Amino acid sequence: MKGKNLFASRRMLRLLCLAFWGYTGTVQAQTDPERLSVLVTESLVHGKAYDWLYRMCKSIGPRLSGSVGAARAVDSTARWLKEAGADTVYLQPCQVPHWERGKPATARVMIPGKYYQDLRVCALGNSVGTGDTVVEGEVLELSSPDMLRSINPETVKGKIVFFNQPMDPARIRTFEAYGAAGASRRSGAARAAQYGARAVLVRSLSSNVDAYPHTGVTQYNDSFPRIPALAVATEDAEWMHRALKENGRLSIAVTSGARMLPDVPSYNVIAELKGTVYPDEIITVGGHLDSWDLAEGAHDDGAGCVQSIEIIRLFHDLGWKPKRTIRVVLFMNEENGSRGSKAYHAAVKEKKERVIFALESDAGGFTPRGFSVEASERALRQLREWAPLFAPYGSDRFEAGGSGADIGALKEEGTVLVGLMPDSQRYFDVHHAATDVVETVSKRELHLSAAMMAALLWLVSENGIER
Amino acid sequence: MKGKNLFASRRMLRLLCLAFWGYTGTVQAQTDPERLSVLVTESLVHGKAYDWLYRMCKSIGPRLSGSVGAARAVDSTARWLKEAGADTVYLQPCQVPHWERGKPATARVMIPGKYYQDLRVCALGNSVGTGDTVVEGEVLELSSPDMLRSINPETVKGKIVFFNQPMDPARIRTFEAYGAAGASRRSGAARAAQYGARAVLVRSLSSNVDAYPHTGVTQYNDSFPRIPALAVATEDAEWMHRALKENGRLSIAVTSGARMLPDVPSYNVIAELKGTVYPDEIITVGGHLDSWDLAEGAHDDGAGCVQSIEIIRLFHDLGWKPKRTIRVVLFMNEENGSRGSKAYHAAVKEKKERVIFALESDAGGFTPRGFSVEASERALRQLREWAPLFAPYGSDRFEAGGSGADIGALKEEGTVLVGLMPDSQRYFDVHHAATDVVETVSKRELHLSAAMMAALLWLVSENGIER
Repeated sequence: MKGKNLFASRRMLRLLCLAFWGYTGTVQAQTDPERLSVLVTESLVHGKAYDWLYRMCKSIGPRLSGSVGAARAVDSTARWLKEAGADTVYLQPCQVPHWERGKPATARVMIPGKYYQDLRVCALGNSVGTGDTVVEGEVLELSSPDMLRSINPETVKGKIVFFNQPMDPARIRTFEAYGAAGASRRSGAARAAQYGARAVLVRSLSSNVDAYPHTGVTQYNDSFPRIPALAVATEDAEWMHRALKENGRLSIAVTSGARMLPDVPSYNVIAELKGTVYPDEIITVGGHLDSWDLAEGAHDDGAGCVQSIEIIRLFHDLGWKPKRTIRVVLFMNEENGSRGSKAYHAAVKEKKERVIFALESDAGGFTPRGFSVEASERALRQLREWAPLFAPYGSDRFEAGGSGADIGALKEEGTVLVGLMPDSQRYFDVHHAATDVVETVSKRELHLSAAMMAALLWLVSENGIER
Repeated sequence: MKGKNLFASRRMLRLLCLAFWGYTGTVQAQTDPERLSVLVTESLVHGKAYDWLYRMCKSIGPRLSGSVGAARAVDSTARWLKEAGADTVYLQPCQVPHWERGKPATARVMIPGKYYQDLRVCALGNSVGTGDTVVEGEVLELSSPDMLRSINPETVKGKIVFFNQPMDPARIRTFEAYGAAGASRRSGAARAAQYGARAVLVRSLSSNVDAYPHTGVTQYNDSFPRIPALAVATEDAEWMHRALKENGRLSIAVTSGARMLPDVPSYNVIAELKGTVYPDEIITVGGHLDSWDLAEGAHDDGAGCVQSIEIIRLFHDLGWKPKRTIRVVLFMNEENGSRGSKAYHAAVKEKKERVIFALESDAGGFTPRGFSVEASERALRQLREWAPLFAPYGSDRFEAGGSGADIGALKEEGTVLVGLMPDSQRYFDVHHAATDVVETVSKRELHLSAAMMAALLWLVSENGIER
């Protein structure tokens, strides 16, 4: 609504023009650069993505799979998709893990004869808790799970392993730094359990040194015991590193109320704009609806959801009818199970649907820089031919790379997979932490990215895509 | 200091390597891509720009010309430049305007027979106040100063003119939107005074609709009276637009304690790394030290100052000796008089110095996208040959355009002028408003931009530059 009054007259003029073009059949005469310009202007001037995101973050809040927030997000986004102008909106059922943090985790470091220090920690997603007991042990600091192979296995037994594996700040592509440092969080608990550790503390995956624990999923290995796993704020990880140097050895007492409950029903939210010429050729676009429980999940991944809804709104409000079917999928449970992604892929297979293209936005609501393409050389070549159209918006990098966790499985179907690639410098400041709130999202950046996504979908819808 | 412990060993290794290369004389064998990579790593891992910025914003605060804050900033940055490793640090005197906001401005709209509404306003920089009186008048809304030409001059007389000229949200280059909408703030008071207006209210120059007045300088015309000039928050400008529509006419009462005092002495802060081969060829780099009084001036332009200091630190700590002289200039009084810029230019002329290249950072501490080049085609061509070096960092756009307010005058000297071009989507959210605080600056973005600036200066220092 902001700024609407002043631009209302211009909008009216444009709608009148479009109506006129529509009647005279010359709407198709708009060139691609003009089309992109119209999309960008419409999104920057009248975009609704930020308003939706604000409501998702402030009225709904955290949306962990199985939570009330997740259920409310399903209802609300289904309604918004209808309001945005989708032809069809439906819910696709899936069973999701129901993990609860319970009583917040604690970690108290005892410094012999001196004092104690409480660390800022949180349970890692899907981890077990300590029940009614306190788990105590000596701290063993390791720089990564691979270190377990090179030390005497006996030294691990009964210990609480502290994986202090920082993200490399020198990497420009922060997702690479995240991937490279992620083993501690993903598999540290499983691997330390193999050697008899009692619990693990994992240095948070954060680009900076900050005061917040960053959660995220950890995976157990069924051959070994499930031990409690906690993330520790990077500031406290730095402190513990120094304290261990000064004291030689330290013991720590941890508690965590985390627990896994039986699976519960949930849903993907799906909406379509039916293609006018090739309705059976489907273009999927989406983000994930669930978030961690500690945060509003503004960048991860409220942004991807509201951008996808905005694409429907853009095409609807501009009166553009895509030749191929545009299908928004708001995936449930990306964070701790990917059950929504699996349910969607299973349905595509079962119905033998032709999903020719899939675009995912799950890298934050930042300024757009381009797209990461997981497809054949031919597809990449075709996409790169469109790059000059995106250059005026600084979003013209089409790079071979990964696409996204929720669409990845569609590779089997020969789908051309693409991930939106926003600027990544700020993402891991807030990722999976309480700081991922809507106040850190720039409305203009969010809307510009939505327009770039809409532009790419429009081009694929008009021209098809080489596989 | 953050994260230092964990990277200390790597740093030590690199310093040892550099020392070794130095002794064997092979340091020059480093390729340009390697050089850039070293600069980026050093800045992202050990950069000090953010720490300096934090101190500038939180320990010093606002730095309006003539204020205590400005004087403290001169002292502190001179000290930091020395600590960073500059060969020479000195202060260059200049007389600056001493404008004070005084008692905060007020603007109360009377709605006949109903109630009143207080607007969120602030005095525009260099504007006169209302003294001990209240200035009252009927509101006349105009969309720009140019509208004054097309209306009956009599309708302006005795009015308080409300210039409601928004920045166009559809423009991707927000600086262009700022320039296009800026006439109301820059010259609205002068032009309305010509027709007998009593005061002006100007819609804040902001990319979004927000709750804060954004200040900035206004210029009077000596042929007409100086009338009070206030900025109004965009939310309140929107409100007033609607209220005028509903009520037909409204009167408003404004007060402002603003006043201009006699000029006072101040300084540019200048520091050098003497060139080893061509010491008389000078490369200037800088930002401006003064800020508006309402804000910490983190993006405008604390960022440009600390990045410039970081360049000295980078070259010093890496042991790189530039062939040409690198001269940091932290300009005083960019915001409301450009006296620092004038003093610097006058000194260059007087000493007949050869300033071959000047780089300014005054567009915010955001992620770097490239450089705006104000120079000959030959210079632009040479700079563009280096673009591939900057591509891995997403900062490879070398575009013909403006450079910066503080270095612009050097064009007369044939200096190649370049402005850092960070991502501009968020800048006018905070520009000249109380929201321009260090919390809105990303450390990684700030440091990456500093490294890009250092890289460009290094290349010019090694290779010279075509004029």
